Amino acid sequence: MLQNIKVTVDAIVFSYDPLQGVSILLIKRKNPPFKESWAIPGGFVEDEESLERATQRELLEETGVSINYLEQLYTFGNPERDPRSRIITVAYFGLVKASNYESLKADTDASEARWFNIKALPSLAFDHADIIKLAIERLRNKIRYQPIGFHLLDDKFPFSDLETLYSILLDREIDRRNFKKKVMSLGILDKLDEKHKPKGAGRPGDLFKFNKSTYEKLLKEGLHFEI
Amino acid sequence: MLQNIKVTVDAIVFSYDPLQGVSILLIKRKNPPFKESWAIPGGFVEDEESLERATQRELLEETGVSINYLEQLYTFGNPERDPRSRIITVAYFGLVKASNYESLKADTDASEARWFNIKALPSLAFDHADIIKLAIERLRNKIRYQPIGFHLLDDKFPFSDLETLYSILLDREIDRRNFKKKVMSLGILDKLDEKHKPKGAGRPGDLFKFNKSTYEKLLKEGLHFEI
Repeated sequence: MLQNIKVTVDAIVFSYDPLQGVSILLIKRKNPPFKESWAIPGGFVEDEESLERATQRELLEETGVSINYLEQLYTFGNPERDPRSRIITVAYFGLVKASNYESLKADTDASEARWFNIKALPSLAFDHADIIKLAIERLRNKIRYQPIGFHLLDDKFPFSDLETLYSILLDREIDRRNFKKKVMSLGILDKLDEKHKPKGAGRPGDLFKFNKSTYEKLLKEGLHFEI
Repeated sequence: MLQNIKVTVDAIVFSYDPLQGVSILLIKRKNPPFKESWAIPGGFVEDEESLERATQRELLEETGVSINYLEQLYTFGNPERDPRSRIITVAYFGLVKASNYESLKADTDASEARWFNIKALPSLAFDHADIIKLAIERLRNKIRYQPIGFHLLDDKFPFSDLETLYSILLDREIDRRNFKKKVMSLGILDKLDEKHKPKGAGRPGDLFKFNKSTYEKLLKEGLHFEI
């Protein structure tokens, strides 16, 4: 079988900071096509590596970032999507904790790596704007039915961080009391003894932790996670 | 960039008959590897065609079936999945109406094409058992939140056909009265004047039709489809 198709992977990585909002990691391309344009980190799959491994390798090479959570998003195969030749890309979406926020280090095919707020994205190479649009949609839908949002938060977080995350992603005001009641009634957050010291004048607040093993136990018992 | 990877598509096609249940379309492979084994229809993507077009072409060539509904399922890229070389496959899942049930015509790489009940699948080539497992899971989840089940039914159907479909896919008894009340309350089924004449001694029953434009209108108004 003669076939002239190449395969790449792309990694749409989200991060979250309660003050700065939800961001996506982009790189500035060092080489043509779209030289100097912003793009999703990614690159060609090596013959012997899995798609997930390729995604993690490219991301680490181009940005210095390792991911907490990775899942396949969609495969983009429009014959016109790359001016070089027929290139099919398997897109993954990943989530990292805010502590990764400052460890960027561009290298190989990237001259720069930077977080961009999802509400202020630059213009993008290839069909990357479409890919990001789908990734944001997936994240938005998914946080309502699976507790993946916790991969974006610190291990211990004040409740308001969770509330702000949902408010940003669902793009609407949240009734604070109802939201807290609903989330706490799921029984998957532990309230810690430790207190959170806000910067400035605020009172120390409670800190929470997502309890993964409780969640998995409740899931087996038929828990219907929905926020 | 030197890369020795090839790309195929595979089509997991479901059909439904109220008496025979939910079935998947499989072909018997004419060539090695896995010669004479049952497999999902599919094949190599041509350089100039989209992934969807490749899926439809391969399906038509190998089985004679055209699909009503097609969506991307997942891309399988394990380096060991094909004994020939590195082959990544983009799997799609499709739905066809029962009227397609009898129009099978194997050709090209397939020596035979046949529907298999999802509860009685044969042993399968490559990683196709895993792919089918994921496809069944997706179908099961998706019919609860999107009205895709109607692609499996005739345009006009007795209510019991819908009920049986959900009962099979959700793999549980359904409370008939509650199910009908719930579905009808969505307001997306038209009850027709025409009656259904069951074979044998039964009374003529009502026929229903899915109203796509009403569904789309209600969706814009915030309808939350859930069954």
